[in-house]
Amino acid sequence: MITRAEALAMDNADQLAQKAAEFILPEGVIYLDGNSLGVMPKAAIVRVKHAVEVEWGQDLITSWNKHGWFQAPLKMGDKIARLIGAEPGSVVVADSISINVFKVLSAALAKNPTRKVILSDTGNFPSDLYVAQGLAQFMNDGHVLRAVAPEQVLNAIGDDVAVVMITEVDYRSAQRHDMKAITSKAHAHGALVICDLAHSAGAVPGLLMDADIDFAIGCTYKYLNGGPGSPAFVFVHPRLQNETMPALVGWWGHAKPFAFEGQFTGAAGITKYQCGTQPILSMQALDAALDVWADVDMDVVYAKAQKQCAMFTELAEARCGRHGIKLFGSRDFSKRGSHVCLEHEQSYAVMQALISRKLIGDFRAPNLMRFGFTPLYVSYTDVYDAVEILADVLDNRIWDNPKFLAQNAVT
Amino acid sequence: MITRAEALAMDNADQLAQKAAEFILPEGVIYLDGNSLGVMPKAAIVRVKHAVEVEWGQDLITSWNKHGWFQAPLKMGDKIARLIGAEPGSVVVADSISINVFKVLSAALAKNPTRKVILSDTGNFPSDLYVAQGLAQFMNDGHVLRAVAPEQVLNAIGDDVAVVMITEVDYRSAQRHDMKAITSKAHAHGALVICDLAHSAGAVPGLLMDADIDFAIGCTYKYLNGGPGSPAFVFVHPRLQNETMPALVGWWGHAKPFAFEGQFTGAAGITKYQCGTQPILSMQALDAALDVWADVDMDVVYAKAQKQCAMFTELAEARCGRHGIKLFGSRDFSKRGSHVCLEHEQSYAVMQALISRKLIGDFRAPNLMRFGFTPLYVSYTDVYDAVEILADVLDNRIWDNPKFLAQNAVT
Repeated sequence: MITRAEALAMDNADQLAQKAAEFILPEGVIYLDGNSLGVMPKAAIVRVKHAVEVEWGQDLITSWNKHGWFQAPLKMGDKIARLIGAEPGSVVVADSISINVFKVLSAALAKNPTRKVILSDTGNFPSDLYVAQGLAQFMNDGHVLRAVAPEQVLNAIGDDVAVVMITEVDYRSAQRHDMKAITSKAHAHGALVICDLAHSAGAVPGLLMDADIDFAIGCTYKYLNGGPGSPAFVFVHPRLQNETMPALVGWWGHAKPFAFEGQFTGAAGITKYQCGTQPILSMQALDAALDVWADVDMDVVYAKAQKQCAMFTELAEARCGRHGIKLFGSRDFSKRGSHVCLEHEQSYAVMQALISRKLIGDFRAPNLMRFGFTPLYVSYTDVYDAVEILADVLDNRIWDNPKFLAQNAVT
Repeated sequence: MITRAEALAMDNADQLAQKAAEFILPEGVIYLDGNSLGVMPKAAIVRVKHAVEVEWGQDLITSWNKHGWFQAPLKMGDKIARLIGAEPGSVVVADSISINVFKVLSAALAKNPTRKVILSDTGNFPSDLYVAQGLAQFMNDGHVLRAVAPEQVLNAIGDDVAVVMITEVDYRSAQRHDMKAITSKAHAHGALVICDLAHSAGAVPGLLMDADIDFAIGCTYKYLNGGPGSPAFVFVHPRLQNETMPALVGWWGHAKPFAFEGQFTGAAGITKYQCGTQPILSMQALDAALDVWADVDMDVVYAKAQKQCAMFTELAEARCGRHGIKLFGSRDFSKRGSHVCLEHEQSYAVMQALISRKLIGDFRAPNLMRFGFTPLYVSYTDVYDAVEILADVLDNRIWDNPKFLAQNAVT
């Protein structure tokens, strides 16, 4: 089993180790929840202060041109494109991920009008399934969501499927779907493919063009560290941008928004997948966060995350197996994203105890503790120390002592 | 004609005059564009700094509970409710205004399924019309947008109309539609009513419950001063909240979002009209901005705005009429919102010249200069001085001198 000295040696040899200095890391905290809300890049403080005091406070309405507010969604889309394997001009930052699911799903269904089945899997993030259910119910013409078990997706692709909607990395099991195989079979059967990159962007190497994916959406406040609720992104394959139309459109997607014409004419390219005005303060924080990635190689990031996930799992099983701790999902770390879920019958209480000890992860119903590994600012010694805390909490049943929890609440 | 001394005397007697001290007003600027982007409340600087450095930077994921991120959309909705004549619990802050138009329009059409006509007017803000066109095109079952002249709306309400969709205050003419008359006739004919309050919230007294309006949406970055692109709001009449379902739903509208159930079950009340995660930094700025309104009486605000609009128009016509300056829209200031559009054949160039002289308004195609009057921070002397600048620019044809414009560009 790995020792702390060995973990430290790995940190000393880690080419990403110096990236942590670009972030604010709360004192004494081991933060393994960057898969839910990424930590703050130092540059974001400076950028938001400027956006508030100079751009909004002083330059006001003139900032739309002067400080590039108009151009931000596409410019930021290009910064993300490199990380997710997309071409420049095919990604735009806008709205929330659920809203972007709705845009691309409605566009895909309109493009494939003779078919009624939206194929997804039961491990998909529930909000994606809700969007599909809500849209199908509204259409009220036989459209239906068919959610099969994750391992059944490939088999379930048939000639009745309009669109296959899959989150590449499962938010609980961390399983990576084989998007190349899924897309290839979907296209052979005349179906379109939507890929949700919520737990992929900034975590695993990009694959959109390589896998020939039609539509994608993703999140910027997790691995990309854009700040709480920072706007999401949407990708449409270049061959489909001018051939598709979402049900949800607005003036930011118009060919000439400031002509204030009475008739909607969609802009060329990905622009049409914008709708209304974006929250600029949150946008500027995200823009600063994206610049942190400019010199980062996603293969290097993913390789480190895989090592950290494996190391955490092995240590946790060895140290805590006797307390019923068990890995949720596959043990093949080459086919996983960058988080680990551990099963334990008292996961909620144990996670509260871990948080009181300044090890931050999250609870996912019904019985999972989830830990995210974000190689830009999590070290190998963090991984080692996290398991020490987990072991201590379990060995001493700290989760079972309300008084201790109350005394140690994070303040 | 009013003199500057008289304007100053009006300021001295103005019960709203001290409110300006709660805002950052750029030095030397007369800002008549608060109808497009409101100026920054001082409290917003403090709040955003806290949201960045403490909430995101230090408390990270725990802030969802610790700093009330989860509760913010409904809590802020209640602050807005008072200003727009709605009941507590019937307004939620989320997403952009165009997206909220889509939510309520889809809900209204689903509630009134046997009718195909969306009635609006050609003076409505184009994005609202685009949303209706996009949705109708997607539905592809005979639904159609019928946009009549603003003065024809009441006459056009018939038994084929599913929903009447009107922006209360026209973004160019500033005309206030008679929402009571429209809603009364619409309901008599079995149609539902959507009211866009983009240029009403924080400008004119609230009327939603009083006029019995079914759905409303509105903007927070104009008169409410929430900051650039701050999230919009949506209102659903209490009688319809549990009886309607938007086409666009997501996990934030689920009855139990953190149960991560596979099936969408809409939350009770207005909560269902949320979809995904909101941009927290922009939300916190807006929350601080809304607190500025806590002691404000909308009747007092509107009375001052009406006086300012009338005063500006009379002075501008008297001083600049010989240059072809003309009021756009009705002269009855009791039936108008809080901005004034002036027609001039060189409006774009003249507005550029005004901006170079630090009088900020905006240009609206094809030939309008628009000036907004925001009584919380615009004084009567501002109004007087603005006309002085306009007269000077026109008298000296400053708009016709590119060299002057270049030298005086706002930097």
